[in-house]
Amino acid sequence: MLKGYTVPLSPKGVANIAPTPPWHYAGDIVGVEFWTDPAAAEATLPEGLDPDPDSSGRVVAFFVDWQFNGENDEYLDPVRSQYREFFVLVDARHRGRPVAWCPYIYVDNHHALARGWIQGFPKKAGHVHQTRVFASPGKASPTLEPGARFGASVSSDERTLAQARVTLQAPMEDPSVLLSRDTINLRHFPTLEVGKYDKPAVHELVRMDYADQQVADVWAGTSEIEFFQAPGEELADLTPARAGMGFRASMSYNVTQVQPLD
Amino acid sequence: MLKGYTVPLSPKGVANIAPTPPWHYAGDIVGVEFWTDPAAAEATLPEGLDPDPDSSGRVVAFFVDWQFNGENDEYLDPVRSQYREFFVLVDARHRGRPVAWCPYIYVDNHHALARGWIQGFPKKAGHVHQTRVFASPGKASPTLEPGARFGASVSSDERTLAQARVTLQAPMEDPSVLLSRDTINLRHFPTLEVGKYDKPAVHELVRMDYADQQVADVWAGTSEIEFFQAPGEELADLTPARAGMGFRASMSYNVTQVQPLD
Amino acid sequence: MLKGYTVPLSPKGVANIAPTPPWHYAGDIVGVEFWTDPAAAEATLPEGLDPDPDSSGRVVAFFVDWQFNGENDEYLDPVRSQYREFFVLVDARHRGRPVAWCPYIYVDNHHALARGWIQGFPKKAGHVHQTRVFASPGKASPTLEPGARFGASVSSDERTLAQARVTLQAPMEDPSVLLSRDTINLRHFPTLEVGKYDKPAVHELVRMDYADQQVADVWAGTSEIEFFQAPGEELADLTPARAGMGFRASMSYNVTQVQPLD
Amino acid sequence: MLKGYTVPLSPKGVANIAPTPPWHYAGDIVGVEFWTDPAAAEATLPEGLDPDPDSSGRVVAFFVDWQFNGENDEYLDPVRSQYREFFVLVDARHRGRPVAWCPYIYVDNHHALARGWIQGFPKKAGHVHQTRVFASPGKASPTLEPGARFGASVSSDERTLAQARVTLQAPMEDPSVLLSRDTINLRHFPTLEVGKYDKPAVHELVRMDYADQQVADVWAGTSEIEFFQAPGEELADLTPARAGMGFRASMSYNVTQVQPLD
Repeated sequence: MLKGYTVPLSPKGVANIAPTPPWHYAGDIVGVEFWTDPAAAEATLPEGLDPDPDSSGRVVAFFVDWQFNGENDEYLDPVRSQYREFFVLVDARHRGRPVAWCPYIYVDNHHALARGWIQGFPKKAGHVHQTRVFASPGKASPTLEPGARFGASVSSDERTLAQARVTLQAPMEDPSVLLSRDTINLRHFPTLEVGKYDKPAVHELVRMDYADQQVADVWAGTSEIEFFQAPGEELADLTPARAGMGFRASMSYNVTQVQPLD
Repeated sequence: MLKGYTVPLSPKGVANIAPTPPWHYAGDIVGVEFWTDPAAAEATLPEGLDPDPDSSGRVVAFFVDWQFNGENDEYLDPVRSQYREFFVLVDARHRGRPVAWCPYIYVDNHHALARGWIQGFPKKAGHVHQTRVFASPGKASPTLEPGARFGASVSSDERTLAQARVTLQAPMEDPSVLLSRDTINLRHFPTLEVGKYDKPAVHELVRMDYADQQVADVWAGTSEIEFFQAPGEELADLTPARAGMGFRASMSYNVTQVQPLD
Repeated sequence: MLKGYTVPLSPKGVANIAPTPPWHYAGDIVGVEFWTDPAAAEATLPEGLDPDPDSSGRVVAFFVDWQFNGENDEYLDPVRSQYREFFVLVDARHRGRPVAWCPYIYVDNHHALARGWIQGFPKKAGHVHQTRVFASPGKASPTLEPGARFGASVSSDERTLAQARVTLQAPMEDPSVLLSRDTINLRHFPTLEVGKYDKPAVHELVRMDYADQQVADVWAGTSEIEFFQAPGEELADLTPARAGMGFRASMSYNVTQVQPLD
Repeated sequence: MLKGYTVPLSPKGVANIAPTPPWHYAGDIVGVEFWTDPAAAEATLPEGLDPDPDSSGRVVAFFVDWQFNGENDEYLDPVRSQYREFFVLVDARHRGRPVAWCPYIYVDNHHALARGWIQGFPKKAGHVHQTRVFASPGKASPTLEPGARFGASVSSDERTLAQARVTLQAPMEDPSVLLSRDTINLRHFPTLEVGKYDKPAVHELVRMDYADQQVADVWAGTSEIEFFQAPGEELADLTPARAGMGFRASMSYNVTQVQPLD
């Protein structure tokens, strides 16, 4: 019998691109809040989600340096367990409850791409970079203090898709605002039969279930972000019209499941 | 309504990681036939396939330089449409009929990885290289003639997994032998709910349906191939015990569907 | 005694990033001729070269799939010996003789980058892609015939720098026009001492000496090319003002030396 | 007049692969001390350096996550300014004084490769990864405390060259031991003329001049490291015979010059 949670299933069950959960994550985030044309934001929503009348057009962009761990000390093989990711979350409502929807996400690691698809994150490959803080001070690194600046960018298929700047002002008084909306994803896996291209084998909205979610070193400030047109991409249709808060934080959590929406 | 065949579904339907079929392919192949321990080959077979009693342990390894095209001249954007791929096909039987089973496959392009998953190819990311022939002669390139040599290798997650050599002897008299077995794949998409990790949402054997399949410049000769242990990999358990034919060919075909097996 | 031609010098002399010449090359070229503002072209010329009054502003852009070989069958390890390269050659004069000057060049292989520096090519790392021809026909590949189309692009540091299209019309009657101008390079290696930043240790114009240069399958046609602004780049200042010939060819040659200019 | 410190020299002087110094650095280090066969270590020494009779065979391996800055806020474009590097320093003597010599070094960023060559570091391209610490606690990240474990590895040309583990025990009481030896490099730039391959244009031993060097969060513990054979590499000839200290630190410094040795 073949073993494993994901492809490739294999005799020993160690070759799979993603192991059986739980999956553990820790990361550093450079985040940018902005407002786009509400019509552009609403156009990205799947059936089952509605615009949020209180904040339609609000989007938060995340550039994250991640480290993954499973049940076998995967964090000790950083080739496989580290990655960088960019995604946007659009404000929406599900049955009247405020939620966040992820229309676009890019990641530089195939294991993370596979875990993402299973969670319903529509991941494509990309390269993501963000300015880091180092403990040893000097001119090559910001420190967590007012005025500290961070740059970040994402590319996919050799084209830059977005670049951002964040300038810190002060520690965020209530970081729970970063975690207040559930993230809603769409698990989707196509059928490959003529006549059934529009009848996917899997197509279900799910709510991400983040366990043991923690944040640390959360600072807020100002931000700017710019999107760029590229072939095969629609991210730039979420053109920022108005800048919001910028932030920089560390975050960790575990994933064992998603909750199918009713 | 969101449009597209694969994630991300999007307002315009152009952001998806793989477009709606048909999918067109052309490539150059460096191929290596070998025999491994039949028990090792059989251990990779999914439920529903049996060992081939006439050739148990026979494996063919393919290193391919591919170019993809869809319905929108995708071949003119080679950043997205070119890729390199390595896979092994293991001889097997389905209901008594000789078939080929793909336990492991690596590719350097995320669009190809996504198309692969949908076809049931268990793709992971990797880097694949093979010696090329160029029309302008000289010491930097083999030509298609007896004695011409080709090298090829594949790595994933920074570790070399396999390297091979092929030396040509003569044009292959009957290239149809390369195409004689149907390829059987396993479409597999997990469930992410506690208690259901072993109950995938999709898990079905399918037969690849290659349309308009053609080959050109098919040469056969001798081969050698070596596999290397690596964390998170089981390819090396198919250790070559005896070398078979080497070959070098060009191939093209189209894909619109797979056929679920009864 | 340490051995080797380039760094790292080492006990066995096999670790060096580039071996002792001769160096052998074979490649496929997608080429685009265009005219830019003569002032922009002239601004890229080093001291010692003059504008060509007959063709000032003429530039030829090359996208090349290369395969390298040394004296030790390096072409059999394509990981190290294959690479893709983009460069522009600007028409100029040296002591009244028509020559070509290479202001910008990008390559995806560190061994090629090192060989380039030694030859005086000012290489930076980049990713280059061009549509390929495959022997097996179909919708995924052009063939060498009138109307065949090729796409090509180059990026560096995650930003697209140029993209081009070439449409073939007919075999080039006299391909020697592609080889008629000597390429002039600048070997340059800085000093790292305060007060001597502008006094490089090596700074000499040289003439490339291509031996056994051959071309094959040379077709000409029409072309278009577009440059894009990017941080840390000046290629886009050579904005195309008028399109010239497009071409597609295979080329091979050997390098053992450059000739310092008087 | 063309401007710039390194190639490509250009009209505006912003295209060069490395800007005019000063160069500022900050990084996180996973370090491994070990002893190899003294004869293997001595074989890597250039003319002008002698074995250190007190510690012949001692080598320190560094895996570093770096961030670079110049005079133009380069750290805000992390695509260009971040990189990861692996190198080994071999104990030696220069005119009787204890020094460290860098025979092999790998880096994943072309700007860093160029700056390295100018400083006399014999850089080749490679991929380097090391376990990171994140401020938000959990199962995906070690924290700086006794028992914390770190993994690190380096590959080049698709082959893994080294992998290491470090387990922390306690803060290092006197971190100055990490900085006690001057690093000696060899600036080397070949000649490309027949008959002069062994007469490089530049070949000079220099002493690295690190200004404002600081360390922070320095912990020491135990270590293990393994080297792997690979084509075109000699690192594995420094096979570890005995393990020494492991450490994990942050470091920052500036570079404006190297000092030619008498």
